[in-house]
Amino acid sequence: MIDIASVEFKNNELVILDQTRLPGEEKYLTLETKEDVYFAIKKLRVRGAPAIGIAAAFGLYVATRDSEAEKMGEFIEEVESTAEYLRKARPTAVNLGWALDRLVEKLRSFDGSVSAAKKMLLQEARDIRQEDEDACRSMGEYGLSLLSKGMGILTHCNAGTLATAKYGTSLAPLYLGQDKGYNFKVFADETRPVLQGSRLTAFELSKAGIDVTLICDSMANQVMKNGWVDAVVVGCDRMAANGDGANKIGTNALAIVAKEYNIPFYMFVPTSSLDLDTPTGDDIEIELRDGDEIYKMWYEKPMAPEGIKTYNPSFDVTPAELITAIVTEKGIVRPPYAENLKAIKEL
Amino acid sequence: MIDIASVEFKNNELVILDQTRLPGEEKYLTLETKEDVYFAIKKLRVRGAPAIGIAAAFGLYVATRDSEAEKMGEFIEEVESTAEYLRKARPTAVNLGWALDRLVEKLRSFDGSVSAAKKMLLQEARDIRQEDEDACRSMGEYGLSLLSKGMGILTHCNAGTLATAKYGTSLAPLYLGQDKGYNFKVFADETRPVLQGSRLTAFELSKAGIDVTLICDSMANQVMKNGWVDAVVVGCDRMAANGDGANKIGTNALAIVAKEYNIPFYMFVPTSSLDLDTPTGDDIEIELRDGDEIYKMWYEKPMAPEGIKTYNPSFDVTPAELITAIVTEKGIVRPPYAENLKAIKEL
Repeated sequence: MIDIASVEFKNNELVILDQTRLPGEEKYLTLETKEDVYFAIKKLRVRGAPAIGIAAAFGLYVATRDSEAEKMGEFIEEVESTAEYLRKARPTAVNLGWALDRLVEKLRSFDGSVSAAKKMLLQEARDIRQEDEDACRSMGEYGLSLLSKGMGILTHCNAGTLATAKYGTSLAPLYLGQDKGYNFKVFADETRPVLQGSRLTAFELSKAGIDVTLICDSMANQVMKNGWVDAVVVGCDRMAANGDGANKIGTNALAIVAKEYNIPFYMFVPTSSLDLDTPTGDDIEIELRDGDEIYKMWYEKPMAPEGIKTYNPSFDVTPAELITAIVTEKGIVRPPYAENLKAIKEL
Repeated sequence: MIDIASVEFKNNELVILDQTRLPGEEKYLTLETKEDVYFAIKKLRVRGAPAIGIAAAFGLYVATRDSEAEKMGEFIEEVESTAEYLRKARPTAVNLGWALDRLVEKLRSFDGSVSAAKKMLLQEARDIRQEDEDACRSMGEYGLSLLSKGMGILTHCNAGTLATAKYGTSLAPLYLGQDKGYNFKVFADETRPVLQGSRLTAFELSKAGIDVTLICDSMANQVMKNGWVDAVVVGCDRMAANGDGANKIGTNALAIVAKEYNIPFYMFVPTSSLDLDTPTGDDIEIELRDGDEIYKMWYEKPMAPEGIKTYNPSFDVTPAELITAIVTEKGIVRPPYAENLKAIKEL
């Protein structure tokens, strides 16, 4: 059972679980000012595209609710400037700008008092959170229909409740299945270099009481070869129109190895991550990050010779033909993907 | 150019490079007593099957050279008891027992004075070291014949000069090629959980001036997909009669991914590691190790929730059909492996 929340608005406070302290410490932070919200996002205390959007929406509300503006024009200006400040916390996070824009646009066309406008902003933030929870729940239900009781499930990175309002994307069927007594046996790749698998996925699944075993990324082949895995479930950061899906580095190799053992490979993709303007995976740019993440970030002392060259791509693209099915909040998509993804996006 | 040595006998001293301090510190230790040798092996200051055997052989000599025994019977007893002590340093290391046995047996059948016997032991240790260097050099030459100038080469774990007398097994062609101006571009997997790739392979190659780029294991697919890899070279801990080869965990997945991109996959196997009494890879038992290696060993703080279940196999078995060619010190072996491995072992 899920008893943690990445972002919550309760007792009139915006509360986040500080993910930088996981798994050692479960510390909740109350964010009161725009600076609190900005640094919580910038320092990755809240992470995962949907969770960032939700935190930003509530953050825009709490940072402006004590505004002394009496006229709407003045209040709108304050909210706009706060939104511009928050947007810079992680400039490449799509959901951050999207959530802020949604509140600002709603405010600009709002007809009422400043006090009513503040209530409206809070409601809009609540809506964003609820819509995400609903989408995750829906992906979970569709995903669960692909799985059976007692199955072994392999996952990579963290596409769980910590990254979303609740349930997660690829982990959602595991939580919904738990409520129905599915007793999944989950294998979590540690997910080098940033260890989202060991720090976050192993944490949230074990905390919920789901049977989870931590492995290194290089061991995924062995658990599949042992016959312990009936399905691979992964998230997706961006999917091209042809069904090629970008996700955490290592995902593509998992799909290749899963094919070797005829294990189904399911990618969980909210339709908001379906980018039909990008024709294929070749058109998705892969973010390269600093080598420090590989040999220094988590270690007591550097784990490679000084000045070593590194190559540190954050994502890779899994070709559509290696994906058995794509799970969206609107339904399960099967090949031919180009045609069927277009149809589901338009639903 | 190689300017480090895992084990050396020089100026009448046994000197090892302390591998537990790499890559941060390059510290050489002189081993003088049987306890020095025992703990150097036990604490992994010297590691790699051939290097352990060489250290044990020289160790047996230095630990008994000051013996005051006047009669051969007495000296043999002293050497035998020292050998029994050293053998316990790493009971599963095949080369350790093999090297000690070789010296003890030679001594038992030796006809001469105690002083002459001591010289004989030193010469036998030197022979063991030289034979290993010759075998590695030979594997390097055969391996190099499979490669071309400017190639991109991917490797996993450490099968290099640090694990052997000199050159290594799968890294030997890289060193020999360097002398001939091959200008390889090498990618080294970090090799989780024990990081032999970042700590040892990246260290020894970069120290020798070879172009090496460090990646996480999960990034090997991307460098292959980018077209940067022309051959994968790996070592082997034990090969079955049918050509299935056990090597560091992660090797099998590399072979599967290499096949996906039609990249040749070469396994370097000294004939001493060819175990014709083991019919197939299914008969090779996979060593399981403690989960601490995954989430605690190298980190400032534990990287997974306390009490998390883990699965930590040290090795996996690459099926013969995924191996393009097997490189031994006696020549290159091509399929059909069952037949051709038997022939080369008997050469």
